[in-house]
Amino acid sequence: MVLNAILKRLSSKINKYVIIIHNNTNKTCFRRLSRNVDVSKYKINQKVLQPMKCSSFTYRTHNCGELRPEHEAQKVTLCGWVQYIRLSKFLLLRDGYGLIQCTVNGDISSNLSGLPLESVVMVEGTVALRPKDMINPNMPTGEVEVVIDKIIVLNESDPVPFNLRDYQKPKEQLRLQHRYIDLRSSEMQHNLRLRSNMLHNMRRFLVEKYNFVEVETPTLFCRTPGGAREFVVPTHHVGLFYSLVQSPQQFKQMLMSGAMDRYFQIARCYRDETTRPDRQPEFTQLDVELSFTNRTGVLTMVEELLYATFPKPLPMLPFKRMTYKEALQQYGSDKPNLTHNLKFINIQHLFVEKQNDPNFCALLLPYPSELGKLPAKYKEQIRELTKKYNTKIILNENITKAMGIDMADKIKNVGGSTNAMIISLGSDENACFCLGEIREMLAKLLSSKGLLTVEDTIQPLWVIDFPLFLKGENGLQTCHHPFTSPHPDDLHLLDTDPLKVRSLAYDIVLNGNEIGGGSIRIHNVELQKKVMKILDIDPESLKHFLNALRFGCPPHGGIALGLDRLVGLACNAESIRDVIAFPKSHGGRDPLSGAPNLISDDEKRYYHLSIEE
Amino acid sequence: MVLNAILKRLSSKINKYVIIIHNNTNKTCFRRLSRNVDVSKYKINQKVLQPMKCSSFTYRTHNCGELRPEHEAQKVTLCGWVQYIRLSKFLLLRDGYGLIQCTVNGDISSNLSGLPLESVVMVEGTVALRPKDMINPNMPTGEVEVVIDKIIVLNESDPVPFNLRDYQKPKEQLRLQHRYIDLRSSEMQHNLRLRSNMLHNMRRFLVEKYNFVEVETPTLFCRTPGGAREFVVPTHHVGLFYSLVQSPQQFKQMLMSGAMDRYFQIARCYRDETTRPDRQPEFTQLDVELSFTNRTGVLTMVEELLYATFPKPLPMLPFKRMTYKEALQQYGSDKPNLTHNLKFINIQHLFVEKQNDPNFCALLLPYPSELGKLPAKYKEQIRELTKKYNTKIILNENITKAMGIDMADKIKNVGGSTNAMIISLGSDENACFCLGEIREMLAKLLSSKGLLTVEDTIQPLWVIDFPLFLKGENGLQTCHHPFTSPHPDDLHLLDTDPLKVRSLAYDIVLNGNEIGGGSIRIHNVELQKKVMKILDIDPESLKHFLNALRFGCPPHGGIALGLDRLVGLACNAESIRDVIAFPKSHGGRDPLSGAPNLISDDEKRYYHLSIEE
Repeated sequence: MVLNAILKRLSSKINKYVIIIHNNTNKTCFRRLSRNVDVSKYKINQKVLQPMKCSSFTYRTHNCGELRPEHEAQKVTLCGWVQYIRLSKFLLLRDGYGLIQCTVNGDISSNLSGLPLESVVMVEGTVALRPKDMINPNMPTGEVEVVIDKIIVLNESDPVPFNLRDYQKPKEQLRLQHRYIDLRSSEMQHNLRLRSNMLHNMRRFLVEKYNFVEVETPTLFCRTPGGAREFVVPTHHVGLFYSLVQSPQQFKQMLMSGAMDRYFQIARCYRDETTRPDRQPEFTQLDVELSFTNRTGVLTMVEELLYATFPKPLPMLPFKRMTYKEALQQYGSDKPNLTHNLKFINIQHLFVEKQNDPNFCALLLPYPSELGKLPAKYKEQIRELTKKYNTKIILNENITKAMGIDMADKIKNVGGSTNAMIISLGSDENACFCLGEIREMLAKLLSSKGLLTVEDTIQPLWVIDFPLFLKGENGLQTCHHPFTSPHPDDLHLLDTDPLKVRSLAYDIVLNGNEIGGGSIRIHNVELQKKVMKILDIDPESLKHFLNALRFGCPPHGGIALGLDRLVGLACNAESIRDVIAFPKSHGGRDPLSGAPNLISDDEKRYYHLSIEE
Repeated sequence: MVLNAILKRLSSKINKYVIIIHNNTNKTCFRRLSRNVDVSKYKINQKVLQPMKCSSFTYRTHNCGELRPEHEAQKVTLCGWVQYIRLSKFLLLRDGYGLIQCTVNGDISSNLSGLPLESVVMVEGTVALRPKDMINPNMPTGEVEVVIDKIIVLNESDPVPFNLRDYQKPKEQLRLQHRYIDLRSSEMQHNLRLRSNMLHNMRRFLVEKYNFVEVETPTLFCRTPGGAREFVVPTHHVGLFYSLVQSPQQFKQMLMSGAMDRYFQIARCYRDETTRPDRQPEFTQLDVELSFTNRTGVLTMVEELLYATFPKPLPMLPFKRMTYKEALQQYGSDKPNLTHNLKFINIQHLFVEKQNDPNFCALLLPYPSELGKLPAKYKEQIRELTKKYNTKIILNENITKAMGIDMADKIKNVGGSTNAMIISLGSDENACFCLGEIREMLAKLLSSKGLLTVEDTIQPLWVIDFPLFLKGENGLQTCHHPFTSPHPDDLHLLDTDPLKVRSLAYDIVLNGNEIGGGSIRIHNVELQKKVMKILDIDPESLKHFLNALRFGCPPHGGIALGLDRLVGLACNAESIRDVIAFPKSHGGRDPLSGAPNLISDDEKRYYHLSIEE
């Protein structure tokens, strides 16, 4: 009734503005109708989304990248940064959208002389076609110029610490220290705008196509046992600290128990790995979880998501899938790079006396013999690897000597007589990992000499059937996280041979980069307690979580994608720092503000802290 | 070339899957064409967004809320929670989308008896129409039922600490302690799903209509002087701490300097106000900033945004605007509630001898005389207020006695002879604030007796022209934040009479709730240094920020909207905790996990901390 009255009163306005009145969004009215919740019909009206110029709400009429010959003779107002001034007559104006040449007549040109680069100006003028011989085909705005009527200096710049050029970038430390200047570069503009678009498209895909619900979960929480080091946050309660979450893992599983059965979140996560180079203390992941699903369900969802939102071509769906064991035995890595075709051959069967020794592994890596002998530098690196992995590596030139003529013949039969080859002998996975690192070294070397094709495409791969446990320093540790479901076929091994138990964990790998991982989770409280016992995790520390399983938790699974790395791949960025607006540098230091800093005595008192030197 | 080859190779797949290949998203190719950045064309293909069933990737065929008579005779698989079992024959099944009645034949019903409520089950069966007399018009699925062929218990629940009923909610502490159960309620499902939709619609509005770019900024940063208490985060560098940002304010202004001229972010913010009730230590705000804009630009943008995305009717645009001074003198609040028409009248002119005394303020609040004398409880509260504000309040029955007959007549002439009225006398703003609180008390009392109409609509209001400074304990303090621009008309008063300087700050108020605030910022480094000096802020602590202004910062402004409160208003929530999935309770404690907790000696050592008792 009330709603109808309002609707009537508003009817005159409805034509002018977008209709945002939907019957079932008035909660009172809605709840009277039904206990059921259906907010799915509260969608934004398409009319509201007609794209407008990106100069709305500003005092410019156009941006610096959009003028074309069709704008000829139009009066325009532009705002931007002084990129370059030539002969006091030509002003190259830049903003986040592009570059445009402006020309100045005599009266005004005196204003230009002495105007420092990177000053911010507003220009009023008229669009004119450039003379044919002045057209710059390398500039999208290269066919026009703006003849300036008036120029207003909005903010004069001090002499800048570096100029923006596409060639000869300044050192990264200086770029980060003055990030507000560096962000004006076409590269950073491209990367951050593409990042925003990619993330928005992911949200649209999940929300609009598949009815996922984005739920924000806390970052101030309690410590999760058995994971990475977590930052702690002191409170004014003496001795009590929050932990900054390393992922929303516990929360998303509690959401599943809470019937939010199609959850996602683009979530900020924290890990105190500031002692490791190239790690950001905070990072962003796309966190997704579904109830009533299985491994195929999650994998298919992620494939469709990437297919719809990754801005580079991907191979046909479904993506390749490979077990952890296959990945190790064929590529020596749990995140193999499939953009080239170097691949191991198992030659254990040739070692008759060790055929059934589970602790022995013999692998062959064939490669084009045109490479000749390895350079000394590579041999040295390989020697280091044999120490690291405690394996025996036999280079091509030493095979006959090391193995004898008969064996060498057999081996060359397997590897192909026209190939050179390297042999790795060792125990278990060590032989694989060692040869895996050699494989990547060799690929770079071969490709630099034109002897191997490394495809310039994205080659995605699912690695599945990870082991549930790994050998740790004190007993077993988890390979993924403590909430990962054992593979149902291996449940019987949980007590007798836990290292043989596979899990329902999976990783998505793009060109050798692990960009995400997930699993089907344990939903049964007894199984979860059993796994925690094997991992020596105190159930008291996860009581709330165990309760969430105990009181009606559905089967569920999900994944987390590392967005910094994914966007980095989309942008061909050398470092993830190039797709983050304000990254930290080594040791977690902020090159811009100098954080972390000393805190005041007042703060120490408030948080009951003192510092141990 | 490479791209074309790939395109060709992929052409067969393009029909099957969405086309995600766009010429200008291959960076190498893109950058060869142009220095200009135009990623605007990288938009998701509309084909990919055809909505699918929300049961994709799961092993259910439908959710519990969607079956209707048109599904008659269909075989369906449903998954959900046992809401209720009656006579071992009727099973009420619930998920996040609704409720459906299932019926069981004799064979299976034995499985049902003893199945605890909130257990998770999968049901296979056939949709049947209910007999006419069994139709439940209050349930969206009330015309049908599912005749069960098979029921599988996916996870049996232990007896739950509380049942989900719409009436008689359990105490909040218990709800929060077992939030995973509470989230299954129709209210929490509604609130979180509406929240997700609202935020998604805001993103679509900003990105798709107005070309804003969402940029994620760090939360681990240095302290911002002059704001709220910020959480500190110890690092392994002895004595050095990050601060958790109270807002992305500095970053968004540095982004403006960095030519990211249309920025927004749905940002997590932190304030250590855990000693105040009803404050969340972390909260979410929609943070927006534009370059080359002015106050009108920002206000118009926010109005359009709210109009397009707030799920309740709003009055016609533009919203009402009122200066801080008007708001104070007419409503006694800087966030007046305009859903009722109680309003002050200034009667200073009647006090001839004090007409020009700037430290004297006389206000009249007329109200319907049918109310009669105020109940004693209210008089007591008013007495408290006069002490708090050091004002004189004259109640209706005392006016003649206090003011004399002549003056009382004059006053009643002004206030209307049929009205009762309350007078507030005092200095400056105190008289306003005091009467403002009385106004809200009185409105509740009058409306409860049917003597005042309080509209059940949303009444938005802009409050503008806030003062730049307030009197603080030691000198002046900022009214908004140190980066707020003075009003250009008052710049001349900055040295001589700073308390008279208005700012370009604005607040958006909905029904007495401040849901957001912003300002046009200072972009000139010298003006910023001057304001910092007045506020006694050490420029060294903001060196990076001052540099960002120094090296080419455009004029800019923006706003931050408190999303918890905004969504709370949309949901008619009693507390913002009802629109947050996992809120903290009093003192910043997490009722679920018990956080904050003690940390280990290892952690204390790693962070060089010891605790002062």
